Amino acid sequence: MKKLLIVYALLFFLFFLYVYAYHLKQPLTSLFRPEQTELNDNGREYVMVTFQAGIDYWKNAIKGFEDAANELDVSTEYRGATQYDSHEQITVLEQVIAKKPAGIAISAINPHELNTTINKAVEAGIPVVLFDSDAPRSKAFSFLGTNNFSAGETGAHKMAELLGRKGKVGVITLPNQLNHKERTDGFVETIEKQYPNMEVVAIKDGKGDQLQSEKAASEIIKDYPDIKGIFTTEANGGVGIANAKKSTNKGNDIKIISFDTDKQTLDKIHEGDISASLAQGTWNMGYWSLQFLYQYNQEKALNNISNETSILPKYVDTGISIVTKENVEDFYAE
Amino acid sequence: MKKLLIVYALLFFLFFLYVYAYHLKQPLTSLFRPEQTELNDNGREYVMVTFQAGIDYWKNAIKGFEDAANELDVSTEYRGATQYDSHEQITVLEQVIAKKPAGIAISAINPHELNTTINKAVEAGIPVVLFDSDAPRSKAFSFLGTNNFSAGETGAHKMAELLGRKGKVGVITLPNQLNHKERTDGFVETIEKQYPNMEVVAIKDGKGDQLQSEKAASEIIKDYPDIKGIFTTEANGGVGIANAKKSTNKGNDIKIISFDTDKQTLDKIHEGDISASLAQGTWNMGYWSLQFLYQYNQEKALNNISNETSILPKYVDTGISIVTKENVEDFYAE
Repeated sequence: MKKLLIVYALLFFLFFLYVYAYHLKQPLTSLFRPEQTELNDNGREYVMVTFQAGIDYWKNAIKGFEDAANELDVSTEYRGATQYDSHEQITVLEQVIAKKPAGIAISAINPHELNTTINKAVEAGIPVVLFDSDAPRSKAFSFLGTNNFSAGETGAHKMAELLGRKGKVGVITLPNQLNHKERTDGFVETIEKQYPNMEVVAIKDGKGDQLQSEKAASEIIKDYPDIKGIFTTEANGGVGIANAKKSTNKGNDIKIISFDTDKQTLDKIHEGDISASLAQGTWNMGYWSLQFLYQYNQEKALNNISNETSILPKYVDTGISIVTKENVEDFYAE
Repeated sequence: MKKLLIVYALLFFLFFLYVYAYHLKQPLTSLFRPEQTELNDNGREYVMVTFQAGIDYWKNAIKGFEDAANELDVSTEYRGATQYDSHEQITVLEQVIAKKPAGIAISAINPHELNTTINKAVEAGIPVVLFDSDAPRSKAFSFLGTNNFSAGETGAHKMAELLGRKGKVGVITLPNQLNHKERTDGFVETIEKQYPNMEVVAIKDGKGDQLQSEKAASEIIKDYPDIKGIFTTEANGGVGIANAKKSTNKGNDIKIISFDTDKQTLDKIHEGDISASLAQGTWNMGYWSLQFLYQYNQEKALNNISNETSILPKYVDTGISIVTKENVEDFYAE
């Protein structure tokens, strides 16, 4: 009986040892990535803020942001100003700052008006990156977006490939908007410098509108009956040119390269009316915005940051993918 | 006694339940980030390949690569060609490819000669990014490096700050080397466009050599006795100009802005002979190279990649930090 009691006591001891050891390590979720959940966000959210919430254009950026968050096991929130109005975006941003999130990724409605509010977030210790539309004079750590000149170069190389490196081409654009001017410059300079048998014969204002672009394209086709290709720097232009090709009899052999990936553009690529479109790396913008904010918090917690902003790259060209009939399905899927 | 046996049996049962539950969850290390260790590298290494192994310049890049690896719990290897010789770097790269690593980050000795070997790695399914020195026509997914034009702009703004936005300035550079030409252009264009009371009066070839740079600086000081500042696009130039300041009597008030962070430059900043130097984001290059390769493997394993290269940004400007007497200690420490 005495021996039994000793065994009994021993077992009790072992049992409590295990209970103790087990509970020490509980809850397992907090064990999972202890340095991460503890160090970097304290359970706070990473927030994406855009203007014009609800338009298709942001879908992939939001998906990229969420995909990265799922991989890193952090939570996110999306906040969009509903109108194309800088005051509304400032108000949304103020509300977000008040909640002291783990980080903010912003697409700025305009390059100046958000600066004060962005700087307020940075000064409050919230890391901020900008994506798609920059505010270059703000204190945000990084900008992730399309290099528009480089996008125009890509358009020129694709046009040269489609035309066998020869023939007259035109451009339909928004000449007064900087990103569109850069796309046009990249296209025109590349054709001039690298394709001696090609010529840009016309650059016209499509006003970002299908009907205006159709009219501009019809004029180009009328003025240059031997035109072989038209590049446009925005999606409505592509649809307008495709309509002009149909409404003019001479337009059957004109190759169109458009921009972005709204449903109408993808449909026309699928049907063969538009040869290609330049898709911006919007998923990349969202994905790497979250990665940047998260890794910044990591490094800060590990005291690897001597200079407040220096661990994040200053500028990221998120790149261009070329959409054609061969891969158009991938772009619907996203 | 019977009751005691039931308690005894119950305790045994609970005891084994705990043992079982505990061991089910062992080893904890494999639990830690299960989706990551399984999915992305199968225990293979991430390899960094440079030319001219052993020079100080790579130290921070290697540290960034290793810091990211430690955070992500993957292993790395550094392989450097010992000579400034493209054949040797090709041989090293071939050896690395043969080991089928999880990813390769390369600084290319020259923009063309490595292309075939880089493409061989990509075609073998190994993700490749380039850092510091690009091979733009290769199939590598990304380039992470300094935007040299933008570095020159930063130099111009710092010079304007040091000089109270007025006075004559000179540049000592390597006019025939593209990255140095871009740094010079960024500096000169920014002074011309943004600082009407400043003037770039001389641009001279320092040949990347201290004595030649000293000679060039002495000439500038002689020709323009009212020169207020000299910017140089490489580190030997900075030391040369500092020596010229000492050897000429007129040089006491000349502000020098140099480039990079070798020990001699940092010492001269510490002593006040050089006002500032532009430090490239070499830690960033290494850190984000590994992050890119790792996240590429993650996304690939999760089948998020429709277009082989599109998840990684095409180009990253890793940025510039300004080193001055105030923060020079941080740069020694690295």
